[in-house]
This record gives sequence, structure tokens and C-alpha cells, in this order.
Amino acid sequence: MLVKKYKDMLSGKSVIRQLSEFATARGQEIGYENVFDYSLGNPSVPVPPEFTNEMIRLLTQAESNELHGYSPSLGITSVREAVAASLKERYGLPYGREHIFMAVGAAGALAHAFRLVAEPGDEILTFAPFFPEYRPYVDLTGAVLKVVPPDTEHFQINFEKFEEMLTQKVMAVLINTPNNPSGVVYSAQTLRILSDILKKKSAEYGHTVYLISDEPYREIVFSGVEAPCVSSFYDDTIMCYSFSKSLSVPGERIGYVAVNPRCADAEDMVNMCGQISRGIGHNCPPSVIQLAVARVLNKTADLSVYEKNMELLYKTLKELGFTCVKPGGTFYIFPKALEEDSVEFCRKALKYDLVLVPGDTFGAPGYFRMAYCMETDKVERSLEPLKKFVRETYGDKK
Amino acid sequence: MLVKKYKDMLSGKSVIRQLSEFATARGQEIGYENVFDYSLGNPSVPVPPEFTNEMIRLLTQAESNELHGYSPSLGITSVREAVAASLKERYGLPYGREHIFMAVGAAGALAHAFRLVAEPGDEILTFAPFFPEYRPYVDLTGAVLKVVPPDTEHFQINFEKFEEMLTQKVMAVLINTPNNPSGVVYSAQTLRILSDILKKKSAEYGHTVYLISDEPYREIVFSGVEAPCVSSFYDDTIMCYSFSKSLSVPGERIGYVAVNPRCADAEDMVNMCGQISRGIGHNCPPSVIQLAVARVLNKTADLSVYEKNMELLYKTLKELGFTCVKPGGTFYIFPKALEEDSVEFCRKALKYDLVLVPGDTFGAPGYFRMAYCMETDKVERSLEPLKKFVRETYGDKK
Repeated sequence: MLVKKYKDMLSGKSVIRQLSEFATARGQEIGYENVFDYSLGNPSVPVPPEFTNEMIRLLTQAESNELHGYSPSLGITSVREAVAASLKERYGLPYGREHIFMAVGAAGALAHAFRLVAEPGDEILTFAPFFPEYRPYVDLTGAVLKVVPPDTEHFQINFEKFEEMLTQKVMAVLINTPNNPSGVVYSAQTLRILSDILKKKSAEYGHTVYLISDEPYREIVFSGVEAPCVSSFYDDTIMCYSFSKSLSVPGERIGYVAVNPRCADAEDMVNMCGQISRGIGHNCPPSVIQLAVARVLNKTADLSVYEKNMELLYKTLKELGFTCVKPGGTFYIFPKALEEDSVEFCRKALKYDLVLVPGDTFGAPGYFRMAYCMETDKVERSLEPLKKFVRETYGDKK
Repeated sequence: MLVKKYKDMLSGKSVIRQLSEFATARGQEIGYENVFDYSLGNPSVPVPPEFTNEMIRLLTQAESNELHGYSPSLGITSVREAVAASLKERYGLPYGREHIFMAVGAAGALAHAFRLVAEPGDEILTFAPFFPEYRPYVDLTGAVLKVVPPDTEHFQINFEKFEEMLTQKVMAVLINTPNNPSGVVYSAQTLRILSDILKKKSAEYGHTVYLISDEPYREIVFSGVEAPCVSSFYDDTIMCYSFSKSLSVPGERIGYVAVNPRCADAEDMVNMCGQISRGIGHNCPPSVIQLAVARVLNKTADLSVYEKNMELLYKTLKELGFTCVKPGGTFYIFPKALEEDSVEFCRKALKYDLVLVPGDTFGAPGYFRMAYCMETDKVERSLEPLKKFVRETYGDKK
């Protein structure tokens, strides 16, 4: 007898996956360069040469057992020290290696963070629009993910609904800024209000409500936008980071958990991550990749293409009459659809070889996501089909 | 409130860890080369040059996004195909890529295998002596690990006890051959009897009792020893493999689950692994390392030193009067201690800078493990202290 909950999941197919399969099939027909696939959030810029060079240097120079041997269960000590030093310098918080746990990407980091603070039956709150994988990530721990409806005006936080939903059962609040799918960066004001509420409720309920801050897009912030450090607003913050987007290495599964040094149990929490790993088969990120990223912590891939693409799309979408919050970072934009049913809207766009993702998937029906991690040339070539789609489908209504 | 079950685990410290810390501290005193640390099972031979060359080739020649992009959730297709082809050729079973799930080492593979077949409360049986990490691996899924007492004569299987313990509640049986800690390889006869019992009980209970075969030491088999393919004895076998030992890359976290093609639900099971991953933050092994191992599937590190070390130790132990089953593979040997309390025995050995691990840890009190993954010179230098320890401590009793 196979375990039913996993077997049942096989029949559900994600909308994003289906769309991406459409794009692949259509690409085989008309050439992939002619399919404007805005469905998948895959980094498209090359890895920085410093990372590649560091990998090659390690492979040619390091001693085999030092390079490929078991990593201690919390991560390689020198790597944890380097990460802590870099965070300390950048954010002015007293990070030491005892606050850092190396993880296999943000998914691995989140898997540990959830288990640190929530038992089966406990609630974790997040805010729409949200990354849809948060649902299985949390549900499969036995905890319950509840989603606070969106602030559709600015895609900051709908605090009224949040306070209603922040009950005694909530053990953690999960945020993602810069945000997938909205592209919005939470403002200092948003983080201050959020922190005040969390402090108040933690005192009221007699248990800490932790803040889990998922920050894979931290390095993709556009000019003129301030991206405040989440941890500096709230002591009980568990930062989950991934190098996937900053270094364009999503396949290499490398990231970390950084527990706020001001959190009362910070060191215990990092040690607990090592215990959680034993149950979920984690056993550390690959050692050669840990060692390589530790040497390029302040490098990123050339991320400027994402801002260029955003500006092009934002301008065109506004000209076409879309309601749209201007992204402050990431490689996503999340406009309002031109009809109430955004699934229908996205279905119609497919006729123009535009692959868009309905907002329903992200807890915000009526909107749609475009992931513009592609060459600018392709974005440019997509603007005519986009205009044509809008004109031919909705021209009469505007 | 941090989750208690993980917090409580912090106070428990593994015996192996404590011994290894002793060895490190003592090494700082008298030089690590003078501490005969038989506690840790870390591969000591260098990675084969073909692996390193393949990594460098990929890093210098492959296109960045192809090399470092997201892996599909079941693993890179070409890698799964290569693994399947290699298993098919070697074992004559009709493996295809649909039977292969790429995992982050054996720990990752096992984390998926357990969740495929056992729900909280279900039982999984294993046989003493056993790898002690099986306990947290299974317990933290919510399932219950029960340990069948050892067949101390040959360290094959104590079938009488096994049949008693194989109740309706058992969903899977977990074996490890070649075995850590005994070094023993299960014979064809053992596997045949095991398979017959599993078939009989599956029919009787109306549910499949799966066989989970943990095979990280598969490539370390000594001359003259036959290591039969477990999957060819029992259709409902889930093979868990790791390249850690064969390629000497335990830090790189690369392995796979291979579901027996003759298993009725094989393809579903592999797809279910992709769903399980979402809950445990797995998201595939690193892509560059998947691609590299796929090109060196039939290579191994030079594993001959392990056999040389085994022969030296086995000969000396026998001469000293130890009762000891001769290992057929791995880099472990598991003799009977010279007094009933093997913890006390190992404590006394420390005075001679011999770091041995009591069998209690492995579910076989009265025995002790030596991990001889070290240079032969060091094994040779340890023989005098070993003789001295035995003579001075137990000489009068023999």
C-alpha cells in the first residue's frame, strides 16, 4: 500500500506546469523563440565567471577529501563564518557562524524553518499573492498554511485581514520580499507595522510568533527602490536565503537559514536544524558548491536585464490600460487581467503565443503573472503580440 | 515555542560523535597521525580523476543555464536514462528512466523511500547490527523502526526473530548489504529466504511488504565474495543508492532511488518521490554533479586499500583471539569485544589511542566496530597498540 496523500497528489497538475508544457509543445511547432513563455521563473542570465573560476580552482587545487568529504551537519564551518561575516557587514546585525545553517536552496531552508516552529495542526500565515509551492511545503509538514487576502492596491500587506487571522494557533508568519509573483518590495513602514503586530500578539498569546522571511530575490532590486533588511525589524526572524537567483545557479541547490542573532534561541535553533535534517534526508548542500559560493558572496550574475525587461513591460502594460503595481525587484510583474476570470484571460492569450499565468494560483484571482527572465530581445518581440491580443480581444471594451 | 521533539534531540549526543571529538582533541595533543581513529566511516581514497575531469569539462564547456538551471523534479532526464541503462546492463532487469529518481545521497533516497510506503504509526523492520542513523531517519517520519536481533554467528539474518516481528503493521523491511557495521554481504540464500517470507506475509496480510535496500557499499566487495543483486530476488524492492563511497564524494550528496521495474507500482512510486520532495525541501541533487556522475557510472575510486586494511586487521584480530566474522565488503569490521560490556571495552582501548565504537550503538551490544577507511600505513602502525591493549588488559584471562 503506497501512502495515499502522495499518490493522490499525482492527479493534480500545477497550472504553471501545464502552461509550460503547452509552451514546449508549441515551441516544437513554431520554434521556441516564437513562443513568448512568461510562465517559468527560471533565471536566464549566465552564472558570474567568478563562481565558475572558483569551482575550477577548487577542483584542480583542493585536496580530494577536503573538497568532497562529508560536510558537518550544519554546513562547512568556514562557509558559515563567511556567510555570517557578509551578513554582519551588510546589515550591521551581530551574525556569527552559530546563526547560520547551510541548506539546499530556499526550499531546503524553508523545510527546516517550518519544522523549527510549527507542529502538526499549528498554523502558518502567509500573504497573497504568494508562491504556490508554499502550500505543499507547509501542508506536508502537517501544519496548516492560511493565506491572508491581498492588499490589491499596493501588494503590501492587508493588515486588517491579517489581524483577524492572527489567532493563538499561528506559530509563524511567512513573507517573501521582494515578492513572487507581484515583484513588490515590502516598505520599511510595512515591516514596522508587521513587527509591531507580531510583538503585540506574541506577548498576548504567551508564545513567540516567528517571522520566516523567504528572500531568494533579495539581490534583484531595481534602481531607486529601498529593500529594507527584514531581520532588523523583528528579533524573532528566521531568514531563508538561496543563491539560485543572485548567482543564476538554481540547479545547484545552495542557500542557508540565518537566524536573527537577537532571537533568544538563535543558537539552539541552528542546532535544531541539524536534527531536523536527519528526518528529512537533508545532510547539507554539496561541499564543493558550499566552498565556491563562500568565495563569491558579494558577487551576482549581471541582473540588469531584469530591470530593463520590467521597464519595457510596465510601460507597455500601462499604455494598454492595465492596472499594475510597478515591481521594485524580482523578475515578475503581476497586472490585473482585463476580465474578471483571469484563467479565461490567460487562455485567450495563448492564441497569441503569450504564456501568462492566472493569479488564482497565487491566491489573487483576477490578476496574472509574467516572469520576464528572458532576453530583452524576446520581450521586445512579444510587445506586438501583446498589443494585438489586447486590441483584438478587449479593444471594444476600453 | 520551538518544536520540542527537535529541541530535546540536542541533549542527546551520539557515541560516535563523542568518540570522534575525543580523537580530535587527543590528536591536537599528540598529533593526529598517532591517534588510531577507527570511529568514523569517511571514505579516505581520492575521487577518481574521471569525475574531476568531467566536472571541469562541464564547467568550461557547458552553457550556463543548461548546466546550472533547475533540474526536473525527478532528476535530469539524461542522467536518469544513464543510470537506468547502467543498472539494466549490470543486473539484467528492465530498468528505464521511469524507475529512477535522483536523490541527495542515500539519506535523501531513504527519506523518500520511507515516505512512499509508511505512514505515521506504521512499522519498518531492520536487522541488527544496523546503521544507527536509521533510527532518527524513520522515527522523524512518524513511522516506527523496530530492530530484529542479530544472527551473531554470521551476521546474516535471524529469521526466527524476524518472522515473529513481521506483523500486520510492518509496511517495509530495510536491509543494508554490504553491511555497516558488520562488513558482511548477504548471501543469495539469505536473500532467497527473506524474499520468500516477504511474499508469504504480503499475501497473508493483503498488503505489500516492501523491501528497502540501502546499498551505499555496493561497490566495495572483496575478492572471492559474491554480492547478489537484491532487487532480482524480490519484485517490490526499492533500491537506495549513493555514490558517496564508490566515488569518494560523500560531501557532494548524490545518489538515487531505483524502484524495481517488476514492482507493480514502479512508475507511480517514482512520480510520488517528486511529490514527497515538495514536503521535505529536497528539490533534486545539484545539477552539475548529476551531470558529472552520469558520465562516470562505471568508474570507482581505487577501493583496493579497504580490502588490504581488512586483511591486516582480520588476521591480527584472529591471532589475538577475537571472535570475528570476516567482512565481505565495506570498510568496517565488527568483532566481539573481550568483555561483555563493549562500552567499557572501548573506553579501555582509548588509553592506547585506539578509537573503537561499541556495538550497542548498532543494536549489537558486546561487539565493537572498526572503520578502517584510512591509509594502510596507519592501520599497520595501530597493530602494536592493539596487541599491547589486549595483552595488558585481557592477557590474564585468555
